[in-house]
Amino acid sequence: MGLRHPQTDQIRLEDVFTALSNPMRLKVVRTLAESGPTPCGSLLDGVPKSTLTHHWRVLREGGLIRQEALGREYTLTLRRADLDERFPGLLDAVLRAARVPAPG
Amino acid sequence: MGLRHPQTDQIRLEDVFTALSNPMRLKVVRTLAESGPTPCGSLLDGVPKSTLTHHWRVLREGGLIRQEALGREYTLTLRRADLDERFPGLLDAVLRAARVPAPG
Repeated sequence: MGLRHPQTDQIRLEDVFTALSNPMRLKVVRTLAESGPTPCGSLLDGVPKSTLTHHWRVLREGGLIRQEALGREYTLTLRRADLDERFPGLLDAVLRAARVPAPG
Repeated sequence: MGLRHPQTDQIRLEDVFTALSNPMRLKVVRTLAESGPTPCGSLLDGVPKSTLTHHWRVLREGGLIRQEALGREYTLTLRRADLDERFPGLLDAVLRAARVPAPG
């Protein structure tokens, strides 16, 4: 059975913000924006697998990423075009904001 | 004792997104953006007081609003200038995205 991904017109803004409300998930979004599709094993070193699985699900169900099996591993891809279609300008603003240093 | 409001340079992006991750809180942000400072009793009809108190706290601690006593009631004000200073362009993109109709 495939993993659930919302269709573009079914992406909910509150779910996008839920996906972005965690520093690790925000970091993954930034990395995918900069590096393109990435095997999920290369993201977030030293984080327990169950935690990773949770983060991929929240990102996926929020409509932020596609999670697809490639060989024995999942590859994560930012749904940039879908997000730009659904909420024009939002992802760019988020990525700019994510480059602002966090409070010390 | 006053309510806790983060200083502008202490506003955390993940807390902004947490504040925006709920449809009621997103609606309050839209209303405040359109109507200016608003007595909190005029927002979110029919919602239990304890729920409102929770939403004001998440919005306030996320740096989205100021919550100030005015007479016997609190007035809520969107921290538009502070947010624009901290994360330029983000609030405008959020308000544009919030005008996109939710999935049916």
